[in-house]
Amino acid sequence: MFSVDEIASRLSGYVVGDGSTNIVGVASLKRATDGDLAYLSKARFLAQLRDTKASAVLLSEPDLPSCPTVAIVVDAPQAAFSSIAAAFEKRELTPQGVHETAAIHSTATLGEGVRIGPYVHVGAATIVGDHVELCAGVSVGNGSTVGTASSIRESVVVYHDVRIGARCTVHANAVIGADGFGIEPRSDGTLMQTPQVGGVTIGDDVLIGASTTIDRGTSDDTILHDDVKVDDQVHIGHNCEVGAHSILCGKAALAGSVTLGQYCVLAGAAGIAGEGPVNIASGVQIGAMTFVSRDIDEPGRYSGNTLHGKNSEWRRNVMHFNKLNDMAKRLRKLEQRFDLKQT
Amino acid sequence: MFSVDEIASRLSGYVVGDGSTNIVGVASLKRATDGDLAYLSKARFLAQLRDTKASAVLLSEPDLPSCPTVAIVVDAPQAAFSSIAAAFEKRELTPQGVHETAAIHSTATLGEGVRIGPYVHVGAATIVGDHVELCAGVSVGNGSTVGTASSIRESVVVYHDVRIGARCTVHANAVIGADGFGIEPRSDGTLMQTPQVGGVTIGDDVLIGASTTIDRGTSDDTILHDDVKVDDQVHIGHNCEVGAHSILCGKAALAGSVTLGQYCVLAGAAGIAGEGPVNIASGVQIGAMTFVSRDIDEPGRYSGNTLHGKNSEWRRNVMHFNKLNDMAKRLRKLEQRFDLKQT
Amino acid sequence: MFSVDEIASRLSGYVVGDGSTNIVGVASLKRATDGDLAYLSKARFLAQLRDTKASAVLLSEPDLPSCPTVAIVVDAPQAAFSSIAAAFEKRELTPQGVHETAAIHSTATLGEGVRIGPYVHVGAATIVGDHVELCAGVSVGNGSTVGTASSIRESVVVYHDVRIGARCTVHANAVIGADGFGIEPRSDGTLMQTPQVGGVTIGDDVLIGASTTIDRGTSDDTILHDDVKVDDQVHIGHNCEVGAHSILCGKAALAGSVTLGQYCVLAGAAGIAGEGPVNIASGVQIGAMTFVSRDIDEPGRYSGNTLHGKNSEWRRNVMHFNKLNDMAKRLRKLEQRFDLKQT
Repeated sequence: MFSVDEIASRLSGYVVGDGSTNIVGVASLKRATDGDLAYLSKARFLAQLRDTKASAVLLSEPDLPSCPTVAIVVDAPQAAFSSIAAAFEKRELTPQGVHETAAIHSTATLGEGVRIGPYVHVGAATIVGDHVELCAGVSVGNGSTVGTASSIRESVVVYHDVRIGARCTVHANAVIGADGFGIEPRSDGTLMQTPQVGGVTIGDDVLIGASTTIDRGTSDDTILHDDVKVDDQVHIGHNCEVGAHSILCGKAALAGSVTLGQYCVLAGAAGIAGEGPVNIASGVQIGAMTFVSRDIDEPGRYSGNTLHGKNSEWRRNVMHFNKLNDMAKRLRKLEQRFDLKQT
Repeated sequence: MFSVDEIASRLSGYVVGDGSTNIVGVASLKRATDGDLAYLSKARFLAQLRDTKASAVLLSEPDLPSCPTVAIVVDAPQAAFSSIAAAFEKRELTPQGVHETAAIHSTATLGEGVRIGPYVHVGAATIVGDHVELCAGVSVGNGSTVGTASSIRESVVVYHDVRIGARCTVHANAVIGADGFGIEPRSDGTLMQTPQVGGVTIGDDVLIGASTTIDRGTSDDTILHDDVKVDDQVHIGHNCEVGAHSILCGKAALAGSVTLGQYCVLAGAAGIAGEGPVNIASGVQIGAMTFVSRDIDEPGRYSGNTLHGKNSEWRRNVMHFNKLNDMAKRLRKLEQRFDLKQT
Repeated sequence: MFSVDEIASRLSGYVVGDGSTNIVGVASLKRATDGDLAYLSKARFLAQLRDTKASAVLLSEPDLPSCPTVAIVVDAPQAAFSSIAAAFEKRELTPQGVHETAAIHSTATLGEGVRIGPYVHVGAATIVGDHVELCAGVSVGNGSTVGTASSIRESVVVYHDVRIGARCTVHANAVIGADGFGIEPRSDGTLMQTPQVGGVTIGDDVLIGASTTIDRGTSDDTILHDDVKVDDQVHIGHNCEVGAHSILCGKAALAGSVTLGQYCVLAGAAGIAGEGPVNIASGVQIGAMTFVSRDIDEPGRYSGNTLHGKNSEWRRNVMHFNKLNDMAKRLRKLEQRFDLKQT
């Protein structure tokens, strides 16, 4: 709980109204109730400001006249809100120490101030850095490393021979280091699994979403560089390399041997997969549900999805997608006949 | 085990044949063996009826002559089958009580008749309602609530500050309440994570499939209203709101800030994502693997996927997808030249 | 650790250079360092061979002159590499025996030489075959079977009444046997869940990737035949049947009641879903992110995805996808008018 005055002081803003008002949480203008702090980001939400039940609102000076409650005036309300929101975090850290039910191998190394929850399993020769949090049910395989101050959430599975850097967050049920999918048909049609004896290396400040899977490499490591941010249910295949500061949104997928440059963005459910390795330049942004099967050499935005329509119309249109070559030929023929006729 | 007579009595049907026949399971006409009850739903399965090895078959009167075994005659065989099938459920509930290995925080509240399995972790101030089942390996974070008679299956992770209603089922390895994906580039290109301090609110009678992820809101809650049914591997981003009685099939995905009305249906792997919030009216049905990037204001069916073809043909056709604008221009030009010529 | 001589002897190759050189790991030509064995598969990597820091390289005779280090000469370097790579596996098996924290039901049957890790839960009347490995946090429901020498990795959830064959590998956080998604609207619009009382049957030598979900059948079993290989985050709906030696790549999905023949391949994120059951013949290969909604009767390759382009171009092109029917009509009209004019 903070007073409006305390919040204004942290944000270098000033208060219009009762600065002693207590704030217990944050919410949007629309859903805020007594005790909540909200913010006004854009003029189009002015109507919501007028009707808000928030106890206080972050806004910029020009919007003051419309504020029905206590105001905290700042230059950039959205950024101010983001910076203060963390103060209202309700999550409790796993308590410091090692829970009595945890199974830590005798050859594992635990850093200072670790927070290890119930039912955590840590394998042989594994290194858990200082101030690392391993939440309930996490398993870390043998010979792996979790870097300083990283937080591995509930039931995450980190296989053997995986290196995770400092200040990473890995959300619940993610899997790091499962075998890459190396399947080759034998001459009789039965299927052979190529051993996957590479590992996974993840840099510092990496975020990995819930239920994301990152496979180990075949002989080299699969690599995520520093500051990569990965959403939920993303899949990163074996031997991939993801450049620093790249963003992979929910359900995006990289098949094996894809190299993504720095500062790339894959929107939701975008996929990259080729016959062989695929290389994507730095600064490439790929649209939602777009399939990329070839190298992209120039930075920029790329898409390949289709847009929805009413079913009745879509049904008539989509048929022609499978006749496009025929349509193109007929068009060419008409052009030729017409030109012929002109001469 | 039930006798045919008992089953007929429950279904208000009548028996033709030996009513004392014992039934130990259910199966399709095609795969049924001795002891199984099957059913005939549609005339096109009459051949399967004639060859069935089932011990008894649910059917409607007109199909009696084709039945080679004991018949239970009812008005609606498929509905009758659905209503009796639950009697053959083989799953055993987690035993009543709290397993000795469970780690329940001293400030958590457990209702009457709870069923808490091994390795379950319940956080501080969390409320577990009457007759709730928490299966092996479930983790429920601090300050969360699981409503009366809900069943949370193995290794599900419920984060802190999540509210789950009554009579919900959450299947194994689902994750509810992981951080929403709020990533903003700083001016130097490094990436900032916006704190996600909202929660998740889930209504009554909600079904959530295996390995589905539902992210917590940024400042408000992500909301699923009553009677929403969600399949496996669905992703629901932060700040979404899903209206009552809506259905999300396997691998469907909502990016952040999508509002879905009531009685909506998203078919498999359909995705909704826009630059800003997207609003979908009640009664909208979206086809499989369709991408929706804009508001839909009218109820009805919408699709935007493409259809498969032989690779040889598809390769010729798909090229032209990226030349459609050019084709449209050439067509327009021909039309203009032709019209010009006519005059 | 092996000497180059030992490796050459295992691979029936011969050594050029110092056969006593010690090899401690495997890597690609590009990333190999001291102690690593690499291999040259294709002529286009000759430049990498010349610059490699590997301690030894597997190659075929013609490439010997370019090798800057110890060479092991074999006929098929890639196959030789695959066969020797397993010798450098760093994963440690779960120790033989039953971990003291495991909760095994008194009516479960454990085979000889089982390896059962911490926090494993095995239900009533479940059978765990000889030499099976159940890693940390695995749960196997009542009445299920895990066949000889199968390895079930961390936090996998196997529901009740599931049969898994011999020599299978199931990667972390996969879920086998969750309820199929059988949802029917009642006349008042509320939603009814059809009981799912079938099970799952999985053959021998099946591979299942991390976070994959395989739902139980409605009344019959969902079936995966021998030697099926499934990647990460694949979804297989209720009542599906997947033929022997078929391959499902990452994020592929089968809705309910899909039958896939033998020797099929679904590339990444391909999906099959129809109004009713869909049958795919043996020997069918489906391209990445392709949607299949109808039966495929002939073996061969099929695709239906679209290709990416620059956003500026894509935006102009994709609009016309929703006007294809109109374009086709206009084209037809021009043809008719032209032909009319000719006559």
